[in-house]
Amino acid sequence: MALDQLIIALPKGRILEEARPLLDAVGIHPESAFDDDGSRQLQFATNLEHVSIIRVRSFDVATFVAFGAAQIGIAGNDVLMEFDYPEIYAPLDLGIGGCRLCLAQSKELGETFDVSRLSHVRVATKYPETTSRYFEAQGIQAECVKLNGAMELAPKLGLTPRIVDLVSSGRTLKENGLVEVATISDVSSRLVVNRTALKVRSEEIGDWIEKFRRAVDAQAA
Amino acid sequence: MALDQLIIALPKGRILEEARPLLDAVGIHPESAFDDDGSRQLQFATNLEHVSIIRVRSFDVATFVAFGAAQIGIAGNDVLMEFDYPEIYAPLDLGIGGCRLCLAQSKELGETFDVSRLSHVRVATKYPETTSRYFEAQGIQAECVKLNGAMELAPKLGLTPRIVDLVSSGRTLKENGLVEVATISDVSSRLVVNRTALKVRSEEIGDWIEKFRRAVDAQAA
Repeated sequence: MALDQLIIALPKGRILEEARPLLDAVGIHPESAFDDDGSRQLQFATNLEHVSIIRVRSFDVATFVAFGAAQIGIAGNDVLMEFDYPEIYAPLDLGIGGCRLCLAQSKELGETFDVSRLSHVRVATKYPETTSRYFEAQGIQAECVKLNGAMELAPKLGLTPRIVDLVSSGRTLKENGLVEVATISDVSSRLVVNRTALKVRSEEIGDWIEKFRRAVDAQAA
Repeated sequence: MALDQLIIALPKGRILEEARPLLDAVGIHPESAFDDDGSRQLQFATNLEHVSIIRVRSFDVATFVAFGAAQIGIAGNDVLMEFDYPEIYAPLDLGIGGCRLCLAQSKELGETFDVSRLSHVRVATKYPETTSRYFEAQGIQAECVKLNGAMELAPKLGLTPRIVDLVSSGRTLKENGLVEVATISDVSSRLVVNRTALKVRSEEIGDWIEKFRRAVDAQAA
C-alpha cells in the first residue's frame, strides 16, 4: 500500500497561494485544514485517496523530493540551484513565484559592482553555495555569512557590505538603503519529481507531469 | 555615533513573548511596531535613544551576535551548541524558552534506543552538528538529513527512521507516532553577548548583564 501512495510536497507561504489554481486545474483538492495557515497539521488528504500533500519550507521541499520521501513537489530554481541534487528532475516551469536572485550592496558602495576591482567579498545570504559559485566564476573569493532571513540588516549593521537575496519588487531593498547591482538568476517555481520514482512509476508520474503542463499552458493562454 | 549604538538581537516567535517581561524589567520599551508580528520592519527603536532591537530568526540571533553586528542577544543553548561560536559569551540563563533537544523514533522501532546495537544511524534534524557530535561520542556514525521544520514527517514518509528535534510537551511527537528515546540536552534561552564588545564596552555591557540578572532573580523569587 505504501508504494501506491503519492506524496506531493508544497512550499509554505506565498508560492502556495499561487499554486492553488494549478492544483485545482489538475484535479487535486486538499482537505479543508490545508487552507488553515495556523494549523500544526503537516500532511493533508485530498479528494484522491492515494494522493496526499505535505506543506513544508521551500528548502525542505527539495530535500523530501531528492530523498524520495515525496515523489512530486513544487520548488523555486533558487532552491534547486543551491542544493543541486542529482536525484531531482525539474521538467516544467510553472510560471509562478517569479522573482530574481540578486546581489545588492549599500548605497555608499555605489550603484555598480566592479568585478575587476575585487578579489574577495563578504556576503550575507541564505544561498552560500550559489553565491560562492557565482563569484568563483568571476575569479572572486566569497566569504558567505549564512542568514535565514532579514538579510537587509547585514549591511545596515556592518555584518557584511553586500547581500545575495531574492528580490521581487525591490521595495525592501530600497527601504533599507540597498542598491541592486547584479542579477544572479531569474527565479520561478518548477514542478520537480524524484528521478527514481519517475523510473519506477513512469506512467503515473508522467501523467501528472502532463496534467500540470496542460494546466500551465491553459493559464498562459 | 555608530560606536555608541547598542543593538539587541531577539528571536521571532514564542521566545519573544516570554522575553517581553524581562525587557520591561530592565527598562527597554520598544516602539509599538515591534508588537506587530506581521510587520516587515526589521529594526526597532526603543525608549532609549542609543538602544535598538532587531527581530530575527533564532539561528540568526547567534550569527549577528557572533560577528558583532549585535552586541547583545537572546538565544537558546540549542542554537549555541549547534554553532559553537567562540565569539559568543553566554553569561546568564534567562529561565525562559524551556524545552529539550531529543532523539525520537518511530514507534515500530521500539521504546528504547540501544546504542550497542548500531554503528550507523540516519537522522533528520535542524541540528546536524549537535546530532553528529552526540552520536560520535557513543561511537555511532550519524548521517544527518538537514530539515528546517516538519521533522515529524521524516519517519512517517520513510526519509529517516529517527529525528533530533526540540520537544516541549511531546504532543506533536505522539500525534505523529513517534517515541522520545533520549534527551540530548535540556534547553533554555540565554543572554548572549559578543566577547569583543564586552571587552571594549565592558562597563556598559556589564551593566546590562547585571540588569538582566536582577530581572531574572526577581522573576524567580
